[in-house]
Amino acid sequence: MDLKRECPEINLNPIQRGGILTPEAREALVEWADGYSVCDFCGGRLDKVQKPNIQEFIYKDLPEFLGCDIARTTNGAREAIFAVMHSLRKRGKYILADGNVHYTTKIASELCELELRMIESSGNPEYKINVEDFRTEIETEKPALAVLTYPDGNYGNIPDAKRLSEICRNLEVPLLINGAYSVGRMPVKLTEIGADFIVGSGHKSMAASGPIGVLGMQKEYESEVLRISRLAKGKEIELLGCASRGATLMTLIASFPAVKERVIHWEEEVQKARRFSQEMEKLGIVQLGEKPHNHDLMFFEAPILYEISEKHKKKGFFLYQGLKERGIGGIKAGRTRVFKISTYRLTEKEIDKVISAFSEIIEENRGLL
Amino acid sequence: MDLKRECPEINLNPIQRGGILTPEAREALVEWADGYSVCDFCGGRLDKVQKPNIQEFIYKDLPEFLGCDIARTTNGAREAIFAVMHSLRKRGKYILADGNVHYTTKIASELCELELRMIESSGNPEYKINVEDFRTEIETEKPALAVLTYPDGNYGNIPDAKRLSEICRNLEVPLLINGAYSVGRMPVKLTEIGADFIVGSGHKSMAASGPIGVLGMQKEYESEVLRISRLAKGKEIELLGCASRGATLMTLIASFPAVKERVIHWEEEVQKARRFSQEMEKLGIVQLGEKPHNHDLMFFEAPILYEISEKHKKKGFFLYQGLKERGIGGIKAGRTRVFKISTYRLTEKEIDKVISAFSEIIEENRGLL
Repeated sequence: MDLKRECPEINLNPIQRGGILTPEAREALVEWADGYSVCDFCGGRLDKVQKPNIQEFIYKDLPEFLGCDIARTTNGAREAIFAVMHSLRKRGKYILADGNVHYTTKIASELCELELRMIESSGNPEYKINVEDFRTEIETEKPALAVLTYPDGNYGNIPDAKRLSEICRNLEVPLLINGAYSVGRMPVKLTEIGADFIVGSGHKSMAASGPIGVLGMQKEYESEVLRISRLAKGKEIELLGCASRGATLMTLIASFPAVKERVIHWEEEVQKARRFSQEMEKLGIVQLGEKPHNHDLMFFEAPILYEISEKHKKKGFFLYQGLKERGIGGIKAGRTRVFKISTYRLTEKEIDKVISAFSEIIEENRGLL
Repeated sequence: MDLKRECPEINLNPIQRGGILTPEAREALVEWADGYSVCDFCGGRLDKVQKPNIQEFIYKDLPEFLGCDIARTTNGAREAIFAVMHSLRKRGKYILADGNVHYTTKIASELCELELRMIESSGNPEYKINVEDFRTEIETEKPALAVLTYPDGNYGNIPDAKRLSEICRNLEVPLLINGAYSVGRMPVKLTEIGADFIVGSGHKSMAASGPIGVLGMQKEYESEVLRISRLAKGKEIELLGCASRGATLMTLIASFPAVKERVIHWEEEVQKARRFSQEMEKLGIVQLGEKPHNHDLMFFEAPILYEISEKHKKKGFFLYQGLKERGIGGIKAGRTRVFKISTYRLTEKEIDKVISAFSEIIEENRGLL
């Protein structure tokens, strides 16, 4: 089987941009490549292995970074969300989430056999979540858990997590922040937000090789979520003993110093995204979601490209092809009408290249409009 | 943080021997290192990605190899066991397993809030499971699922899975074979055994970088275990949409041709293990579990080493130290009385080296006996 990765020079796919490994992580990946390598010196608990020093990472670095009391690594953000929901599932009959929720929150609630109720967004064009709407729903019936997608993976909107934390705290409902697209990209601390749980994705936003995620929580939930097995000494049930047992964890640890550093420069990423959005709009490609935008993940609607696709002999594939020829990828082949783009950690020069590419592709096909 | 792996030339730890990557897997690991790399060309289902050709692996190669109708990759063997238990949990009040069961089966049953009942082994010295004992238990009350650890991770015993399959089939109880230490090491096919589910571990026995596992099942369970989400189009709930999304999967695929080939030579591995066991016994180190042994994973009781440790100035650490000086590792520092060793894929020369090491260490300390 052909196992070469066909990877464009510039990959605009939002699920790829934050997961590009640092050189340190690439080194760690090769060093810890074999099967169960991190378990060479395990005394029974993955999170307490000291050679390599996983313990220091999980008990010191990670909680500090997430701004929480207790942290663990998991097989991914979705698995962390499931673990929390599953642990708290008897507190209520349903999960209350924002309407921009990632599909994995939906599935996690189904797997827990909990109903999912969603707070509708403002719809086109901004799709904003008004967190005040959570209150009415909670006052009618308390959910087992509230979930806020921060930001969501469609529009890259950053809802008011602090305000929602106040609301949930006052109404005594635990709140989970799904930070799959924030933890590792932008500064985000659970204590500052005031919520109860925070979840991050190693492969999406922490320059780690997947699958790996992180879960942070406040002390009061430790005995509930990280409850210990009666049958297997010292093992945490909800993590099935150990979660991310392998090289994936070592890449997360290896990239961590660089990740800590990069979140400091978040404001530059926001500025880059805003400039990109403005330039795209000049081409007739409209950015949906919050404007001015506050995140690198952007949703675009491109009636002009769609119009070309209707007459182009390659149909919608002209866009994919045109970008590919210019070393740009990450938009699904055939797509023109709507697509997502992330500018995360692209240089200004690369962003210029992407804008020029869109501009040239439109100009080349101007005759079809 | 120091991220170098201190890995002995010969690692006797059973959880490491089957997970050493093939050169092809090392290449794939580097190629697919970044975060979510396998998702570049995903149309919504990881198992149907064709670039790289994950679909061919999951729908053709893997079921063929496991001898089953349907296969999936998971985050690990334990996650696969949980998925099956969780899907079938309403079929009964408890899980029935062999007494040599791996701890993750215990935890998975706890996570499903199912009681765990175990069929006791014959105890010291062979710790054999008499599968006929499952019948009595099932006839008293039907479990949701029966689990057979094949072989177990303590003694490396291979119970009569075919006979248990007949018993379970006759009594209409689904049976899961936990093949974490068999799938990828020895020939094992679900159809030949006659059971309903089979689980394997990529990092333990399939030369893959962890965490990754495989799950095989017969067609009749597909709609129950791989049930589709009502809320997220086409996604399988029990796998939370996608499971092993990353380079781990690519290492499994890359090693697969070599793994298929190596299981053919299983008999040689058994012969090597038997010779090793005999030589160790000559030194006064007794192999527990089935004898003659049928697997590379062996449990040893070493009263002679324990006796030395009681008088040695390094206490039990003399053994670890003595082996380490000879380039041998995988027995926990401080341990002497009982330990596990795997000879899997060691050369005859390496096996000789290990036997000599034990012999020399005993001779060096003969004065303490």
